[in-house]
Amino acid sequence: MISSAPAPLFPFRQVALVGFGLMGGSLGRALKALPQPPRVRAWASEFRDLEEGMAVGVLDEAAADPEELFRGSDLVVYAIPMGSLPGQMEEHRGLWEPEAVVTDLGSLKGPPQDLMERLGEGWRYVGSHPMAGGEGTGFAASREGLYRGIPVWLTAGSATEGSKARLEAFWTALGARPRWTTAGEHDRRMAWVSHLPQLTANALATVLEGEGLGRDELGPGGRDMTRLAGSSPEMWSGILAGAGPELCRALRSMERALAELRRALEAGEAERIVARMEGNREWFRGGPWK
Amino acid sequence: MISSAPAPLFPFRQVALVGFGLMGGSLGRALKALPQPPRVRAWASEFRDLEEGMAVGVLDEAAADPEELFRGSDLVVYAIPMGSLPGQMEEHRGLWEPEAVVTDLGSLKGPPQDLMERLGEGWRYVGSHPMAGGEGTGFAASREGLYRGIPVWLTAGSATEGSKARLEAFWTALGARPRWTTAGEHDRRMAWVSHLPQLTANALATVLEGEGLGRDELGPGGRDMTRLAGSSPEMWSGILAGAGPELCRALRSMERALAELRRALEAGEAERIVARMEGNREWFRGGPWK
Repeated sequence: MISSAPAPLFPFRQVALVGFGLMGGSLGRALKALPQPPRVRAWASEFRDLEEGMAVGVLDEAAADPEELFRGSDLVVYAIPMGSLPGQMEEHRGLWEPEAVVTDLGSLKGPPQDLMERLGEGWRYVGSHPMAGGEGTGFAASREGLYRGIPVWLTAGSATEGSKARLEAFWTALGARPRWTTAGEHDRRMAWVSHLPQLTANALATVLEGEGLGRDELGPGGRDMTRLAGSSPEMWSGILAGAGPELCRALRSMERALAELRRALEAGEAERIVARMEGNREWFRGGPWK
Repeated sequence: MISSAPAPLFPFRQVALVGFGLMGGSLGRALKALPQPPRVRAWASEFRDLEEGMAVGVLDEAAADPEELFRGSDLVVYAIPMGSLPGQMEEHRGLWEPEAVVTDLGSLKGPPQDLMERLGEGWRYVGSHPMAGGEGTGFAASREGLYRGIPVWLTAGSATEGSKARLEAFWTALGARPRWTTAGEHDRRMAWVSHLPQLTANALATVLEGEGLGRDELGPGGRDMTRLAGSSPEMWSGILAGAGPELCRALRSMERALAELRRALEAGEAERIVARMEGNREWFRGGPWK
């Protein structure tokens, strides 16, 4: 008889998903692909998403309301837009099982973290931000491999060591690469690595549209540069409302960097731009960070 | 006996490639995949590229010098960076076969077009700009399908109807979608759809590097937005030198679009940005252009 190494014990028996779109749906798929999958229950505003999840066997139950969703769930995952996140968490407080761990997949970690500490629920809260996504929305856009191999930022205020260890084991089991940081440091970093690229794509789309140019006029590079213009405004609404002065600073830096390139062109000094491009290519290839 | 429809006759018997990197190498591969492929000859500064092309059967001959390259070739294709393009064309003038058609794959069509007209060679010159590319360089980065399904801008000053018809048939046979324009209109358009996205990616890379952030910190969106930062400065050097005031105008528009987003954030009016994102998504999905 051939025996293989036992899979590490998954740290949760039943996962409750609040929201079942691209992010929540992909999480459900990944959970159900584990060697020893937990039970997966979801509750979402789009009933069609839940129906599809049931039909393909990703969901064990589609909950009719939050009470039913949380009953027996030892992990609660909020996979909804930032704009509704704190409100929903506050509303659901008191419905979570006494020992349940709570996390969310939001792009800002300050607002949920602050709320949970204020509510005295910080001991069970660990924030998650997987660096994954796509321009699609809904369960139809979800896929099993969305979180595989990608970095996931984890933040904890007063969370217990047990909550932290279980959340880290959760993401590790899904094949992601968890990294710890603080909510403040995380949100400052996202202004540069996530929010700035998004708004840059929006600015570029605005400029091209202003010239009467469609996306079908673009080559592969231009198409890459405008893919994020297809992002969901609903999702970004809450992120932008919670964005601080760091994003303004990032946008101003971007304005300055473009102006510098323009002035070099105006001065007929294309070689200055070429030198800059050489530096950018070094950065692209890994620079001193690898 | 089963007979299939005859493949349309390819309009050239022997193609001479000046340059055999990503663009020229991919062209060679596509030519050799035709049902009735022409002979393909190349000459390039990187001898290793030619050796590889011979080894995999994409090249019939690696020419030792331009004379050998052009002998018997009824189509000459310049697949070299914009910076060296006009100089090489001028140097080779007089070596082309009397009836040969000449084209190039450069990203600006004004400089080669003007030169050929000035040399009295305009009758045989049709400019090509396939909207394809990638961040790799050299024959190693080439692939057969690079030109399949993509738009190719064609420009002609005083080219004969015969030269124009043959060039159009050439690209159609390769599965590309030729579209006619003028060199001036082409170059103005490229400032917006190609050069602006490139320099925007460079500005973003500069900003991120300035904050000590590596590309490995980015999610999928940010990675898309910085892929062009890996572009070849050598290739862009000639494009930037030939770029006119239109690119400065495009950069200034981009600065303004970013400043507008920043001011909305500073004023606490995130909803203005969300409204803009909704418009951008419409544009992304096709807008009034489709």
